[in-house]
Amino acid sequence: MQTLTPVIALTGLPCSGKTTISIELEKQLVKQGSQVRRLDGDVVRSTVCKDLGFSKADRRTNIERLSYIAKMFSENNVIVIMAFVSPYEDIRRNSRKIIGESYVEVFVDTPLDECKKRDVKGMYKLAQEGHMQGFTGVDDPYEIPLNPDLVVHTADVLAPENSRQIIDFLAQYGRL
Amino acid sequence: MQTLTPVIALTGLPCSGKTTISIELEKQLVKQGSQVRRLDGDVVRSTVCKDLGFSKADRRTNIERLSYIAKMFSENNVIVIMAFVSPYEDIRRNSRKIIGESYVEVFVDTPLDECKKRDVKGMYKLAQEGHMQGFTGVDDPYEIPLNPDLVVHTADVLAPENSRQIIDFLAQYGRL
Repeated sequence: MQTLTPVIALTGLPCSGKTTISIELEKQLVKQGSQVRRLDGDVVRSTVCKDLGFSKADRRTNIERLSYIAKMFSENNVIVIMAFVSPYEDIRRNSRKIIGESYVEVFVDTPLDECKKRDVKGMYKLAQEGHMQGFTGVDDPYEIPLNPDLVVHTADVLAPENSRQIIDFLAQYGRL
Repeated sequence: MQTLTPVIALTGLPCSGKTTISIELEKQLVKQGSQVRRLDGDVVRSTVCKDLGFSKADRRTNIERLSYIAKMFSENNVIVIMAFVSPYEDIRRNSRKIIGESYVEVFVDTPLDECKKRDVKGMYKLAQEGHMQGFTGVDDPYEIPLNPDLVVHTADVLAPENSRQIIDFLAQYGRL
């Protein structure tokens, strides 16, 4: 039986630590000899998704487009790490449908107050003051994942350890 | 010096033989042990580019988006074969700019009359009768590539041989 190359989808509130974990995870997987493609929300929005904003429809298109891309990488034996807020359950379910069995959903479960504390760019504050519309965690909901494959906690665990937890999980279930 | 993994962009009129060559080329490269990702116009328009039509602006966005994706695959050592009409020189130049030194442009130089003969779906006829707007080769121009890296002829050469020519060219210039 061939091992399916995983697409690791990190979902969580803004400033929950998704990007930090994804960078660390990439580093550890590359060290193990894997080919890795990191798809980060901030990056793709200047390239393959530069036509999209943050409305629900655009968020859906953004995640869907990246899911198609992720699936192709997985088919070429490149491990994908997606780091997106991806706040809606139905959009995440759509990702799982597109990507299929390679899809591994990791909920980065960081309390909202902790995310606000880490917000070096002051985005939560801007949203609370009404300068940003549709900001997840302020005036737009983050729907808690109903069926994540794994949950990681960042309040008292550092990114290298979160990353190790994800790799251990994948190894345990024969996904690496 | 590291070898840059090539992005092979096949450009040419509708029914010039791009898809046939790309399938053959993929087969030969996979046989040599390479990871290959084939990005075909017809396929991506149902996935990552399903929002796009055939206006000049949409064609530009289509090729640009795929160029960003191609570049990522190349960075992960996956050879990319793009098969698109890609009729405008400025759009092709934009691809070369995005993809950089990995970009290898192959002009599939099939005479228009020959393309019409091969048109099993009858698209040229439909366009000539006015049922399709902006069809390349009928009421929309195909701008001959000014600086292709390689030209292949399909009128008297079969796809396996065209494919071999492309592989030989890449090998000769240290691109494989």
